[in-house]
Amino acid sequence: MLRAITLALGLSVATSLTHAQEIDDVVTSFELDNGMQVVVIEDHRVPVVQHMVWYRAGSADEPIGSSGVAHFLEHLLFKATDTLESGELSATVAANGGRDNAFTSWDYTAYFQRVAADRLDLMMQMEADRMVNIRLTERDIVTERQVILEERNQRVENNPRALFSEQMNAAQYLNHRYGVPIIGWRHEMEALDMEDAISFYDIHYSPNNAILIVSGDVDPEEVRALAEIHYGVIPANPALPERIRSQEPPQRAERRVIYRDARVAQPYVSRSYIAPERDSGAQEKAAALVFLAEILGGGTTSYLAEKLQFDSQVAVFTGAFYSGVSLDDTSFDVIVVPAPNVTLEEAEAAMDTALAQFIEDGVDAEQLDRIKMQLRASEIYARDNAEGIANRYGRALTSGLTIADVQAWPDILQAVTAEDIVEAARAVLRPEASVTGWLMQAEEVLQ
Amino acid sequence: MLRAITLALGLSVATSLTHAQEIDDVVTSFELDNGMQVVVIEDHRVPVVQHMVWYRAGSADEPIGSSGVAHFLEHLLFKATDTLESGELSATVAANGGRDNAFTSWDYTAYFQRVAADRLDLMMQMEADRMVNIRLTERDIVTERQVILEERNQRVENNPRALFSEQMNAAQYLNHRYGVPIIGWRHEMEALDMEDAISFYDIHYSPNNAILIVSGDVDPEEVRALAEIHYGVIPANPALPERIRSQEPPQRAERRVIYRDARVAQPYVSRSYIAPERDSGAQEKAAALVFLAEILGGGTTSYLAEKLQFDSQVAVFTGAFYSGVSLDDTSFDVIVVPAPNVTLEEAEAAMDTALAQFIEDGVDAEQLDRIKMQLRASEIYARDNAEGIANRYGRALTSGLTIADVQAWPDILQAVTAEDIVEAARAVLRPEASVTGWLMQAEEVLQ
Repeated sequence: MLRAITLALGLSVATSLTHAQEIDDVVTSFELDNGMQVVVIEDHRVPVVQHMVWYRAGSADEPIGSSGVAHFLEHLLFKATDTLESGELSATVAANGGRDNAFTSWDYTAYFQRVAADRLDLMMQMEADRMVNIRLTERDIVTERQVILEERNQRVENNPRALFSEQMNAAQYLNHRYGVPIIGWRHEMEALDMEDAISFYDIHYSPNNAILIVSGDVDPEEVRALAEIHYGVIPANPALPERIRSQEPPQRAERRVIYRDARVAQPYVSRSYIAPERDSGAQEKAAALVFLAEILGGGTTSYLAEKLQFDSQVAVFTGAFYSGVSLDDTSFDVIVVPAPNVTLEEAEAAMDTALAQFIEDGVDAEQLDRIKMQLRASEIYARDNAEGIANRYGRALTSGLTIADVQAWPDILQAVTAEDIVEAARAVLRPEASVTGWLMQAEEVLQ
Repeated sequence: MLRAITLALGLSVATSLTHAQEIDDVVTSFELDNGMQVVVIEDHRVPVVQHMVWYRAGSADEPIGSSGVAHFLEHLLFKATDTLESGELSATVAANGGRDNAFTSWDYTAYFQRVAADRLDLMMQMEADRMVNIRLTERDIVTERQVILEERNQRVENNPRALFSEQMNAAQYLNHRYGVPIIGWRHEMEALDMEDAISFYDIHYSPNNAILIVSGDVDPEEVRALAEIHYGVIPANPALPERIRSQEPPQRAERRVIYRDARVAQPYVSRSYIAPERDSGAQEKAAALVFLAEILGGGTTSYLAEKLQFDSQVAVFTGAFYSGVSLDDTSFDVIVVPAPNVTLEEAEAAMDTALAQFIEDGVDAEQLDRIKMQLRASEIYARDNAEGIANRYGRALTSGLTIADVQAWPDILQAVTAEDIVEAARAVLRPEASVTGWLMQAEEVLQ
């Protein structure tokens, strides 16, 4: 680890302070001298605190051939450090009446503890410790590699829908690492070793690549003081590389994936279109896609449900899904589960007819208003959940958005028009940028 | 460049000498003290020499996000060095009555000159020079980037078959960099800069990552003496990384790619199966696949031609293609060009029926004998071409094979049985490991 030798270089960025005004979230943000961003979200209703550290490093930041290492390292961060025994961090959280965990996605890895507000000091002390002081043994590597392989067995290998989804993703992304599963390809996971883990840790784990998010019954100045004590003393990593991602080339050819598995109980059609994500300062297209997903497939009153489940009874389930929080281009997904005696081919044809018809019909004004009201309500409900709020900021900030973007989002959603939605549908629902998947029951067990 | 500082580390491998006996190629191989492999193939019929340097680095060795850099660097190696003006190397070759060029593939980059045998000394001097002494200017970068972009325009963007092939490849490889085009994705080529080029050069261009192949009217000891003078003085790169490739996970789902382009004059069906390559010491499966391609689609007497072109007249052209020289898993390809008024769907169905029927029918013994004789003849004819022979060794050695593997190959081919071929067909022609592509004429110009 080279980072200890050049402390001076890290002391560059001036502290800044942002205070939210347009929304009820009371958000304070500042930066430590070593480049660590800090976000404090006050919620004094319950004397509880959610303490999170988010790294701007996820599975899409992994080197070629080492898929799964981001998630592997996340597991390994619960092992020993210079001052903590293996498992001691979680045990300490539990002994203090809290709970802790961590999660990895394509764009981030996050660690959190939820605990009584007066334990924040202790949480920071332990979290800061494992940012730089992990001490792995070969036995940790062997044991935890077995754990992640077993996790893959449970979540993916034993689940035809998950296997199907993996193959769909690989076909959707021609060049981007979003085509590689977060948990990793099994054959690469089997080869993950100490060097892979430590290399990922050394490159990506440093205060200048991390965001501290504290939500709950806390005072920003108190958080600042504690953060300076625990995180502020860690030198920035001057060798932190630029976050280079392999972007998609133009998608020019429509793709199809047919996955057969004897374990499939319910075949279905899945359609995935490449779609823009929420870009900082330019979230309008993504906002329109949020509505498009809701209107097409957001429940039993949606367009696809009406056309395919109630009118023609071709399908027993329809859905459309879009989440714009992503560092790079993401996907817009539609699913149709055919009724008995309806083939996948018929279900797909009915889906395509309905999608084309929707662009013709346009958006029902009443439905749009209803969805806007629902979204506004869910924003308000969401604010009741300190954990959810912290996650929202963490995901956004590791995905290229700013606090201002997060706070502007509700108004951007409310400003979406029927025309925006149809335009978004036209722009995104292009065959040549899509993958169509058929999950089918195999006649016999394959392989 | 760190390589100059640790000369001593490079002086490790003892010189070895192999002399071919089983085949008429007179091949001598040895290694310089700095780890550079040397292969000499004698052919004294004409006083000409083919001088080649092959690097074990191709586009599949490129870092994420920098596709095209291997080929870009290949272009840049014709610019100035410490002692040569930009373009001087090629001009010197031409002035000496020779010709020179270079080529890049997924697994290798190679540079060659073909010239009168008494000019070998000069060729080595210049080639050794640009192995370590290139001096690029920002203008070289800008100019040559424009050249490769124009090359992409000519070869790919203006050619619907090439665009189709790119999208097929991207769908074929779920994880391997063979899914990325050798020339690069345009958006990544546009961003290639001096740092990308020099970084690839520093990592991959060194004597211990290179193979010198000299064929023609030369004496091995003379080649050794010259090689020691010119290449032997270049220190090995002690930091040469292991050649890490991202291997394929199990391919579990059949994929389809439909590419529509207004410029398509002749639609066709293309089918690509993932297939094993020639592995060192285990080339038997690949040998059977060579026969499978010949028997299925190697000309007008092939199985597919007979079934689809002559019997049913569904197709105007059929073909099957396999080249086993590849560092990692490769593909086995079948193509069917439908007759007028035959749809791609009908052509594909006829192809699948024929492939299934072939596995039922098995291999015609007479046809197998005929192909074996042809292969033996083509081996002999190939030996008449010193350039072809040098290429054969260069491609093999940069693709994980040995000289012994190259020399054993003709006998392995002759030993293939009808049963081996049917077994290979059963093993490889699996829908779940395949991509089926339809190249179609667009009704209107897209995009």
